[in-house]
Amino acid sequence: MTADLTITDVRLTPILVADPPLLNTQGVHQPYTPRLIVEVVTAGGITGVGETYGDTRYLELARPFADRLIGRRASELNGLALLAHEMAVDGSQVPGRVDAGGLRGVRTADKLRLSVVSAFEVACLDALGRALGLPVHALLGGKVRDAVEYSAYLFYKWAGHPEGVPGEKDDSGAALDPAGVVEQARRFTERYGFTSFKLKGGVFPPDEEIAAVRALAEAFPGHPLRLDPNGAWSVETSLRVARELGDVLEYLEDPVLGTPAMAEVAARTEVPLATNMCVTTFAEIKEAFTKDAVQVVLGDHHYWGGLRITQQLAAICRAFGVGVSMHSNTHLGISLAAMTHVAATVPGLHHACDSHYPWQSEDVLTERLAFEGGRITVPDGPGLGVELDRDRLRLLHRRWLDDDGALRERDDAAAMRAADPEWITPRMPRW
Amino acid sequence: MTADLTITDVRLTPILVADPPLLNTQGVHQPYTPRLIVEVVTAGGITGVGETYGDTRYLELARPFADRLIGRRASELNGLALLAHEMAVDGSQVPGRVDAGGLRGVRTADKLRLSVVSAFEVACLDALGRALGLPVHALLGGKVRDAVEYSAYLFYKWAGHPEGVPGEKDDSGAALDPAGVVEQARRFTERYGFTSFKLKGGVFPPDEEIAAVRALAEAFPGHPLRLDPNGAWSVETSLRVARELGDVLEYLEDPVLGTPAMAEVAARTEVPLATNMCVTTFAEIKEAFTKDAVQVVLGDHHYWGGLRITQQLAAICRAFGVGVSMHSNTHLGISLAAMTHVAATVPGLHHACDSHYPWQSEDVLTERLAFEGGRITVPDGPGLGVELDRDRLRLLHRRWLDDDGALRERDDAAAMRAADPEWITPRMPRW
Repeated sequence: MTADLTITDVRLTPILVADPPLLNTQGVHQPYTPRLIVEVVTAGGITGVGETYGDTRYLELARPFADRLIGRRASELNGLALLAHEMAVDGSQVPGRVDAGGLRGVRTADKLRLSVVSAFEVACLDALGRALGLPVHALLGGKVRDAVEYSAYLFYKWAGHPEGVPGEKDDSGAALDPAGVVEQARRFTERYGFTSFKLKGGVFPPDEEIAAVRALAEAFPGHPLRLDPNGAWSVETSLRVARELGDVLEYLEDPVLGTPAMAEVAARTEVPLATNMCVTTFAEIKEAFTKDAVQVVLGDHHYWGGLRITQQLAAICRAFGVGVSMHSNTHLGISLAAMTHVAATVPGLHHACDSHYPWQSEDVLTERLAFEGGRITVPDGPGLGVELDRDRLRLLHRRWLDDDGALRERDDAAAMRAADPEWITPRMPRW
Repeated sequence: MTADLTITDVRLTPILVADPPLLNTQGVHQPYTPRLIVEVVTAGGITGVGETYGDTRYLELARPFADRLIGRRASELNGLALLAHEMAVDGSQVPGRVDAGGLRGVRTADKLRLSVVSAFEVACLDALGRALGLPVHALLGGKVRDAVEYSAYLFYKWAGHPEGVPGEKDDSGAALDPAGVVEQARRFTERYGFTSFKLKGGVFPPDEEIAAVRALAEAFPGHPLRLDPNGAWSVETSLRVARELGDVLEYLEDPVLGTPAMAEVAARTEVPLATNMCVTTFAEIKEAFTKDAVQVVLGDHHYWGGLRITQQLAAICRAFGVGVSMHSNTHLGISLAAMTHVAATVPGLHHACDSHYPWQSEDVLTERLAFEGGRITVPDGPGLGVELDRDRLRLLHRRWLDDDGALRERDDAAAMRAADPEWITPRMPRW
C-alpha cells in the first residue's frame, strides 16, 4: 500500500542567489535576488521540494499557507488554489497594475496567492512522486517527449555590478551592442548547444536592438530569433520593428503593454506576438483570445499556480489555436526541473522554452541540471529527480539572514540607481 | 517501489444492455444498446476497467488501438490521444455531420477516436490507482467535494417496447403527458433523492412539453428544471419556450442545432443555454465561446477523450465564465464511477450532472452504485472503486454474440419503425 501522504511539516527557506547585471527596460538585476525554497514533509518520511519568488509579500503569504497544509495529503492538489483563495491578501501588497520588478504583468491578489501556491504544488508533486516511485511527469499524465528544448536567453549586460555594490563576479563580460550580443550568443551556443535565441530588449532605442537582432540573424542564419522589450514600445514602433525584422523573427514578445494595444499590433502585422505580460491569469484569457491579440502564450507555472494549471493553460491555448511556450524569470534548478516535467507533457509545444538558468551560477541542488544540444533530458527518477544540497541552501539562507533588507525585494530600478542616481522607472511606452 | 505498470494485455468485451423505451426527437431507445467494456492488464497483475460506446465503428477502432497499448505503461495517458490520432478512420464511418443515434453532436474522425480512447484512459487510471493504492480522483489532483450531485433524467416513454420486439420489462410505466412526467419524477425522487429534474424533450409539440415542465414546477416548486429537445426547435420556437418557462428553468439545453442558431437564441433570452451538441470537441469551443452562444457546457468524458481532458474542458469553461456540468448517454456503473471521480475534482461545478444510470436495470458490477439524496459518494478505494462481475459480463456479452447484428448499432429511428413503419428521422427544426 501507499506510504502515508499526510503532510506533517513544511519548511520555508528564503534565500538570496547571485544574479549578474542583466539589463531590462525597468533597470538592472540586483546582484542577489530573493527566492523561496519550500519543503513539504509527509508522515511517510518523504520530502518534496518547490521554489518560487522570495520577496517579502510572497513570504508573508507562504507562512500561513504552509500552516494550513499540515494534516492535508500531498495528493490533494486541486484544493490548493481553493485553500489559498480563502487567505486574505493585504491590499497594500497589491499596489500597481504592473509588477515593476519582475515584469510579471498584472498584479492581483489571486496571482500573488497562486505564485505562492505554485511552489507548494511542485513540492507536493515531488513528494508524491517519491512516495509512489514515479517521476512528476507521470503524475501529470506522462511525458510526450524525452527532452525539452530551451532557447538561449540573451541579455544586454554590464561586465559587472556597479562599483561599490557587493556581488559575485561573472565571466561573461559586457554585452551592450550587436557584437557583444552575438558574442554572448556564441558562448551560450558553445556551452549549452542552444539553437534558438531570445534577446531581452527595451533597453536601448529600437534601432540598436533591431541591429542586434540583424547581427544574430547573420551569425546564426535560419535560427529562430525573438525580441522582448517588455512593453516598452508604442504600437507604431512595434509595427516598424515588425516590418524591419519580420523575415527573421519567430515572434515578437510583448512589444506593447496591454491586450488592446497587442491586438492592434497583431491586426497589422504577420509577425506572431507572444506574451507573458498581458495573459498571465485566467481572467485575462477571454479578452486576449477573442481579440486575437496574441499568437503564443508563454506560461509560467510560478504565477499560474503550478504544473497542473499550466497543463490546463496549454489546453486552453490549443483549443483556441494559440501557441504555447514557457516564460522564465530568475530561477534555480528546482524550477527548471519542474518546468521540464510539465513541458514534457504538453502536446504541440512548438517553441523552445525560456530559461534564465544559465545565468544562475548558484543553485541549491547537489547536481545542476545540464543543457545538451539546448535541451534538458526529462528526469525519469522519482519526483522531480533532483536532490537538495542542504549546505548550499544553508549558505544562501545565511546570505538572506545577513541582508539588511535592501535585497529582500527585487527592485531593478533601485539596482539601476546604484549606477545612475537619477534613474526612475521609465514611463511606457519609452519609444 | 511501484508495481510494473507495463500493459501486457487488453481485453475488449462488447455487450448488449437492456434499455427501456425512452423517447427522443430521433425515435426511441432500442430494447438493448451496445457498450464496450475495456480491461487493461498490467505486468504487475493489476486490471483496470473502462467503458464506452459499443457500436461497430467503435469496436473496429478499439481493437487496433488495444494492440498498440501493449508494452506501454498505464501511466502514459497524455500519449493516448496522440496514439489514437495516428490511426486511420475509415471515411465511411464518419458520414454525417450529426450523430443520428446518439445525438452526440458533430461526428468527426477525431471524436470517434477520442470516444474509443476514453475507455482506455479510464481503464489505465483504474489500473494505476489500484497499483498505487490511490483513488482515481487522487490521480486527477484530488477531490474538492465528497459527493457529486446528479439530476433526475426524465423521459417521455412507453410502458414497454413495441409488440413483437423482444426486450426486458421495466416497471416504471408510460410517461406521455404532464401527469406521467410528474409521476416519473416523483418515483425518481422517492427512490434516489434527486432534487433537480431534466426532461428530454423534442418528442411532442412544444406546448405539450411546456405544460410538462410547468407541471413539474408546480409539483416541485423551487427545484432546478431543465428541458432538452436536442435541437428540435427553430430559433423563434426556442425563444417562445424561453419566454414561457423562463421563470422556472435552470437552463434550456440545445434548443436549436448549431452554434450560430444557439448564439442567436442566447442573444435574445436571459435563460441560460446548455449544450452537449454544439460544443463536443475542442475545435468547436472558440466559435461558441467568442459568440457567447452557450452558458453551460455539458462535458462527457466519453467523447472528449477521458477524465483528464474533461478537467481541461472544465478549465477552459472556467476561464471563459462558462458553466460546466456533465452530459450522459446510456451507460453503466463503470462510467458512472468515472464521471463521479472527475466531477469531484472540478471546482465550480454548479449544476447537477446528468445520468441515465437509473434507467439501466443491468450492470457489469458486483455492486451497483447508489444515489443517496441525489448524490453519489465519491469512492475513496483504490482506482475507480468498483468491481467487475465477470458472470454478468459474460451473460451480456453472450447476448451480443447471439444478436444477428440488428442491435449492435444503436439506431433510435430504426427502433421507432418497429412501432411506426413510416417513421423517418425528422428534419430539424421539427417545430
